Amino acid sequence: MRTSTGPRRRGVLGTAVAGALGAATAGIAAAPAHARTAAGGDAPRTGERLVAILLYDGFTALDAIGPYEVLCRVPGVRVVTVGVRQTGPVRTDTGELSAVAERTLADVPAADVLLIPGGGARGQSAAGADGAVQRWIRRVDRGSVWTTSVCTGSLILGAAGLLRGVPATTHWAARPLLEETGAVWTQRRFVEHGKIITAAGVSAGIDMGLHLASRLAGDDVARAVQLGVEYDPAPPFDSGSAEKADERTKQLALKLLNDASS
Amino acid sequence: MRTSTGPRRRGVLGTAVAGALGAATAGIAAAPAHARTAAGGDAPRTGERLVAILLYDGFTALDAIGPYEVLCRVPGVRVVTVGVRQTGPVRTDTGELSAVAERTLADVPAADVLLIPGGGARGQSAAGADGAVQRWIRRVDRGSVWTTSVCTGSLILGAAGLLRGVPATTHWAARPLLEETGAVWTQRRFVEHGKIITAAGVSAGIDMGLHLASRLAGDDVARAVQLGVEYDPAPPFDSGSAEKADERTKQLALKLLNDASS
Repeated sequence: MRTSTGPRRRGVLGTAVAGALGAATAGIAAAPAHARTAAGGDAPRTGERLVAILLYDGFTALDAIGPYEVLCRVPGVRVVTVGVRQTGPVRTDTGELSAVAERTLADVPAADVLLIPGGGARGQSAAGADGAVQRWIRRVDRGSVWTTSVCTGSLILGAAGLLRGVPATTHWAARPLLEETGAVWTQRRFVEHGKIITAAGVSAGIDMGLHLASRLAGDDVARAVQLGVEYDPAPPFDSGSAEKADERTKQLALKLLNDASS
Repeated sequence: MRTSTGPRRRGVLGTAVAGALGAATAGIAAAPAHARTAAGGDAPRTGERLVAILLYDGFTALDAIGPYEVLCRVPGVRVVTVGVRQTGPVRTDTGELSAVAERTLADVPAADVLLIPGGGARGQSAAGADGAVQRWIRRVDRGSVWTTSVCTGSLILGAAGLLRGVPATTHWAARPLLEETGAVWTQRRFVEHGKIITAAGVSAGIDMGLHLASRLAGDDVARAVQLGVEYDPAPPFDSGSAEKADERTKQLALKLLNDASS
């Protein structure tokens, strides 16, 4: 995996913007072969785009892995997992599972897409209060094409001061905390406002990931990725939305979330 | 994390069966406190149930993490990730991400739920041809309450000889390979036949995970977990099923899957 920031920076500031906005891509010579051949006629011919997913102690696994699984299959996109102070295993909120950070904050000074997953209350609060994390988020955001979050990851973006006056969403149970950051809570599966895209709780990152795939490589590619991961959801129950759930289910959901977090 | 197999074996052969079948659980003294208090009136009072998720080189991240994220929040359930020959990081099919195996095959001689994720062609074929993996699957299956797979994980179950004559599913592109194992391909999001549950491609593991949650702890808990992970899917496209996709999208999906696999 390359870590040089020269080509990356060009990707961040040039080609990825062009791709995302559908602007002309003439003069961009660095299009990877697989992007040229696989993306189909609708997709922009651009250089490699870097998606940086922050992994902090106590993050929620599916918040990160849902969009990862979609975006890693988009031609010309490279996904990198970013640990805070070191590479290697990072514990999730339950303590039963770890994923591996390939890079550190210092290794990744810029990215086309910044993605902050949510986490258990302890981990998410700590990331929101960690000066190094906050400075990194603000720095990467300055050069990003898209700055995104899943679930309570929006609270971490908010702690960095990025959501003041911004329509955004989060996990249904975290709405008051999101509003405290100055964000305008908006009830949607994901909310795009300028370059900031925030997704609702945990599994909503998959839907946001597909939206990002379409922004990065066009609708045809996003549709093919959706088919590739056979995302034709058929939950055996219809209780995934706080709008539909009764109070007893909500209370039990909160208790289970709390009990499972380490 | 405990590794003693005494209580586990009782869980495997006794209480989990009772829970799954809704039988009386009198005489079971080992119910964890959080199961007793959080599960609600409908859930069986049982001992801890062990879910073993196999992580082999080249597995697909979401195949494992989707059901993990659901099941780790079910009271009384403990999820363990199982590497083949060693603990530590296991590479996924894209090579861009690794998850950590907490135990090895030898550490986990029995489980209440066996879960085999799918993988890229290379990884899945290798796991299906690995004698140690196959022997472990057959041994754990003999004592399991549920033996399950996601995506091409069913090909690995099939290679172990567990699917002969069994209605089952897999990733849409792997149907011919599944049929070669003697399974009866069945077009469903997930297929339950006796104690074997197979899910369709990648993201279908989330739906199967919720079904398993209901089998293990009752519908109220499954509904609460669904709300906990806010699984109210709203994909921005409707191309997740091979039945709905046109030939061009299918071909592009296959190409993207192939290009992303290491």
